[in-house]
Amino acid sequence: MPIPSISSTANDNLSAALDRAINNKTKPLGSLGMLESLAKQIGLIQNTAAPSIQDPAILVFAGDHGVVAEGVSAYPQDVTWQMVENFLAQGAAINVFAKQNGIALHVVDAGVNHDFGPRDGLLDRKVAPGTRNFANDPAMTAAQCAAALEHGMALAADLPGNVVGFGEMGIGNTTAAAALMHKLTGLPVAQCVGAGTGLSSEGVLHKQRVIEAAVEHHAAINEPLDVLATFGGLEIAMMAGAMLKAAERHKVLLIDGFIVTSALLVAAKIQPAILDYCVFAHCSDESGHRRMLDHLHARPLLQLGLRLGEGTGGALALPLLHAAVNFVGQMATFESAQVSEKSA
Amino acid sequence: MPIPSISSTANDNLSAALDRAINNKTKPLGSLGMLESLAKQIGLIQNTAAPSIQDPAILVFAGDHGVVAEGVSAYPQDVTWQMVENFLAQGAAINVFAKQNGIALHVVDAGVNHDFGPRDGLLDRKVAPGTRNFANDPAMTAAQCAAALEHGMALAADLPGNVVGFGEMGIGNTTAAAALMHKLTGLPVAQCVGAGTGLSSEGVLHKQRVIEAAVEHHAAINEPLDVLATFGGLEIAMMAGAMLKAAERHKVLLIDGFIVTSALLVAAKIQPAILDYCVFAHCSDESGHRRMLDHLHARPLLQLGLRLGEGTGGALALPLLHAAVNFVGQMATFESAQVSEKSA
Repeated sequence: MPIPSISSTANDNLSAALDRAINNKTKPLGSLGMLESLAKQIGLIQNTAAPSIQDPAILVFAGDHGVVAEGVSAYPQDVTWQMVENFLAQGAAINVFAKQNGIALHVVDAGVNHDFGPRDGLLDRKVAPGTRNFANDPAMTAAQCAAALEHGMALAADLPGNVVGFGEMGIGNTTAAAALMHKLTGLPVAQCVGAGTGLSSEGVLHKQRVIEAAVEHHAAINEPLDVLATFGGLEIAMMAGAMLKAAERHKVLLIDGFIVTSALLVAAKIQPAILDYCVFAHCSDESGHRRMLDHLHARPLLQLGLRLGEGTGGALALPLLHAAVNFVGQMATFESAQVSEKSA
Repeated sequence: MPIPSISSTANDNLSAALDRAINNKTKPLGSLGMLESLAKQIGLIQNTAAPSIQDPAILVFAGDHGVVAEGVSAYPQDVTWQMVENFLAQGAAINVFAKQNGIALHVVDAGVNHDFGPRDGLLDRKVAPGTRNFANDPAMTAAQCAAALEHGMALAADLPGNVVGFGEMGIGNTTAAAALMHKLTGLPVAQCVGAGTGLSSEGVLHKQRVIEAAVEHHAAINEPLDVLATFGGLEIAMMAGAMLKAAERHKVLLIDGFIVTSALLVAAKIQPAILDYCVFAHCSDESGHRRMLDHLHARPLLQLGLRLGEGTGGALALPLLHAAVNFVGQMATFESAQVSEKSA
């Protein structure tokens, strides 16, 4: 399996041109704050001083997790396929926010433990009906993990637009994400686990113990792709593949919450330059997410106490990306508007 | 001048109905964070369990400030009228963001030191060609201040929609706003002043000294409307009037940054229930704004390091208001989507 090659977006000349374009707009220097750095980042990703947003899309990957057998989630596993049905019926939060903000939504069955049959609007990339329980066995075989990565790459390669958001659905996947976070950041498991969809503090402690035992059980596993196969999920692996390909294609990657960022941790271990392409949509209320973002030196756009997943944070942040490219494209300059510049 | 009467939005039955509507949606309890409290607030303002956003508008009030004679701004006074021209030519940041997010923009000459003549798209409510220098004299006479408040009320009464954002333009108006903040919150002047459009630290210290001397000069002034007349601006007074009337009409008030919030401080001293109607769009980088928000126990939606004014924070936050009413109106419930509820 060839891993996409991703180059840094660093470009001194373009960077200077973007700074000039931003600073000449009719506003006090720096007064658009994070929108200014966002505009510059998008310009560097797209290799232009005239950045744009075209055909934004969100890929929502769904998958089931064998580790739910350990009692790590507040909801039954059936909720994964039921929520996929809800996505297809336009009833979930991500449907509402994607529609509102003009985002094409693509729902992918990466590995749900349910037979949907052929269905309009569902991309069937099921590698297996869920992962195995990583308390006992590696979640995926190396072949399953590679297949998931490859499906993700192909999906991202097929997207027409220049912004791709990532979302997920999978009962149990905060447990997988917390395990990945621990292995890939070195932070203690206790700092990686959270309440997920709504565990009690006892439930969170149990989840921590399950992960700690599994990490000990698979102590020899340390290479990023082996870590992904052992502790990840099919939806997480497919996201990581899609992220790598999207960055290779110079798309803006719109990163959602805890689980999406865990997929990025894997991708960034393999291709660190991928971080140049990432816009961090929000900081989730899932307690490990802030630490993940700090680990990546990431500044999220929104801090709204969201912890829903599905790519909702990305969908909600998209208008800020539009605002960033629009002010660069549409605002007058001091010269064009004949506005006096700063006296001092 | 009759002050609008504003009633609290508190309503136990409706509050419970909104909680039920929000909690039955297909998502973990509370997982939409601040969007949930926002949806509830808008429902209470509109007195309905089916909140909506209709014809959102932003009023941008422009005015000049005599206190610029003290050298308190990094930009010359002419920038006020030049930026009004820029608004009319669609070249400013607020034009771009209002257009992007479907917001009607109304530009009001509350008291600019410039003769625009009759102009399409400019609402001429000029009370005077700027305020007097409050280092020496009260900025406004009582009659000027009352006229500004009344114009503001009439403008808000004429708006068709149910969401009103507020914005401003006025070289020197962070100095007026800082003086109002000091008088109305009791915080030391040093905690109220900031860099405005880009003062050096020496410039900020000078601004502080100017305000401290003026506060001492007008030491006997303490009633909210007297404070407004003495230290405020025509655009700030007109905003305060518009806020009071908009709340009386049960509109959602979209509060922008430092200067807009200073107008709200005045309005809230007169009618404290106005705060029930306020959505705080963002926390500005102007250093006093965070303290103003804390004083009002306000939680802003965005924290993007903006410090531009014009209502830009409100315009950028509007999609989050849409998201709040849309999830309540469009998401499926656990029952309608046949999704299993939490096990524990």
